[in-house]
Amino acid sequence: MVKLTEDMKEAFSKVKIFPFATASKAGMPNVIPIGMCQLADDETIWITDNYFLKTRQNLDENPVASIFVWGPEVGGCFQIKGDVEIKTSGDDYEKAYAGAKAKGDKFPAKALMVMKITEVFECKSGDDAGKKLL
Amino acid sequence: MVKLTEDMKEAFSKVKIFPFATASKAGMPNVIPIGMCQLADDETIWITDNYFLKTRQNLDENPVASIFVWGPEVGGCFQIKGDVEIKTSGDDYEKAYAGAKAKGDKFPAKALMVMKITEVFECKSGDDAGKKLL
Repeated sequence: MVKLTEDMKEAFSKVKIFPFATASKAGMPNVIPIGMCQLADDETIWITDNYFLKTRQNLDENPVASIFVWGPEVGGCFQIKGDVEIKTSGDDYEKAYAGAKAKGDKFPAKALMVMKITEVFECKSGDDAGKKLL
Repeated sequence: MVKLTEDMKEAFSKVKIFPFATASKAGMPNVIPIGMCQLADDETIWITDNYFLKTRQNLDENPVASIFVWGPEVGGCFQIKGDVEIKTSGDDYEKAYAGAKAKGDKFPAKALMVMKITEVFECKSGDDAGKKLL
């Protein structure tokens, strides 16, 4: 696994909406905006599944994901890839469930996606775009 | 192919940065922010490749992509999937190349990705998220 740097963690904390990409086993990509996305620690992202449809189907059959960290609040941009474990019970899920309900009773918090970071790439426009950082 | 509605076209025209997702043939997703992205007509998106790395490798081996249309300027959110043809010569490519150079001489405009829209999905948070619109 890979640990984000302090600068990356600071950038991550400033972003409100993240594009979250998955793919079916056959390789059809899917990307959606997600809001309930937080760092659990330096190498783990927690994503709450409230209304996932294709995203959930994709992760069931192909548990890898990609996300980029960018927004008006952040200077640069980097992309994270990781392995995803789906949790629908246990302490971590219960904590995520409570966190979602604290934001609004309407959120079903059907599952918690625990994404272990495997790679980080430069994602800012320019000649270095796409290069591996971590 | 599928034609975007007038509302969708208006939303598309307001967005500045689009998340563009691809996947390797083995199913590893990749998502990057893109700026040079425009509607060529109701059913075709033109994306200029300036600094693509994994995105280009993915499209070479698996020519399908996903994008979502959302931003502070837009009320809702929808996701587009499509088939991609890579052009590095011909009238369309020359037009895209000239368009990129008009924005800045630094942009290499290495290729034009012509994305034919095949499906459109609801992408706004809520019970209808993920449902097929077109």
